[in-house]
Amino acid sequence: MSIAELTDAEREALLAANPDWTLSRDGKAIERTFKFGDFNEAWGFMNRVALIAEKHDHHPEWFNVYNRVEITLTTHDADGLSQRDVDMVAAIAALL
Amino acid sequence: MSIAELTDAEREALLAANPDWTLSRDGKAIERTFKFGDFNEAWGFMNRVALIAEKHDHHPEWFNVYNRVEITLTTHDADGLSQRDVDMVAAIAALL
Repeated sequence: MSIAELTDAEREALLAANPDWTLSRDGKAIERTFKFGDFNEAWGFMNRVALIAEKHDHHPEWFNVYNRVEITLTTHDADGLSQRDVDMVAAIAALL
Repeated sequence: MSIAELTDAEREALLAANPDWTLSRDGKAIERTFKFGDFNEAWGFMNRVALIAEKHDHHPEWFNVYNRVEITLTTHDADGLSQRDVDMVAAIAALL
């Protein structure tokens, strides 16, 4: 694994600072559901996240239907959460 | 229900003409997985589908991770497949 997994303390700090995100059942990812007014708004948001993801070379697993967007962040090279996910959470927060 | 569900014969014809799409387990939706070279290509495709969906006012349920896109089409107002899904399949095929 080329990327360090967050320590327990770092993971706790991430979740404490971002209560809208929840840890996945296996503890290796964080998830958040976003609701928008309509598809136009949801897709605008997703496009902004897509540009950030491509720039960071760190891509979400995500699901969309109409105005709902579900984002899962994890770092496969760390087999869990890493600083890359922390950075993505911050970048997404800055959009909202 | 304001939109007519496809008849059995229409559904069979749709699937016969589009073998890359499969009927969901409950028979109310069709699904297809697309693979691209990278996220850039996958996202370009999704943006084209998003514009079509918005124009048709018929939005997919879809999932993306990196170069993989999974699309599910159904018509909630028909509680199953309708002509709207047939039209979306044709519009997506025209992109590829």
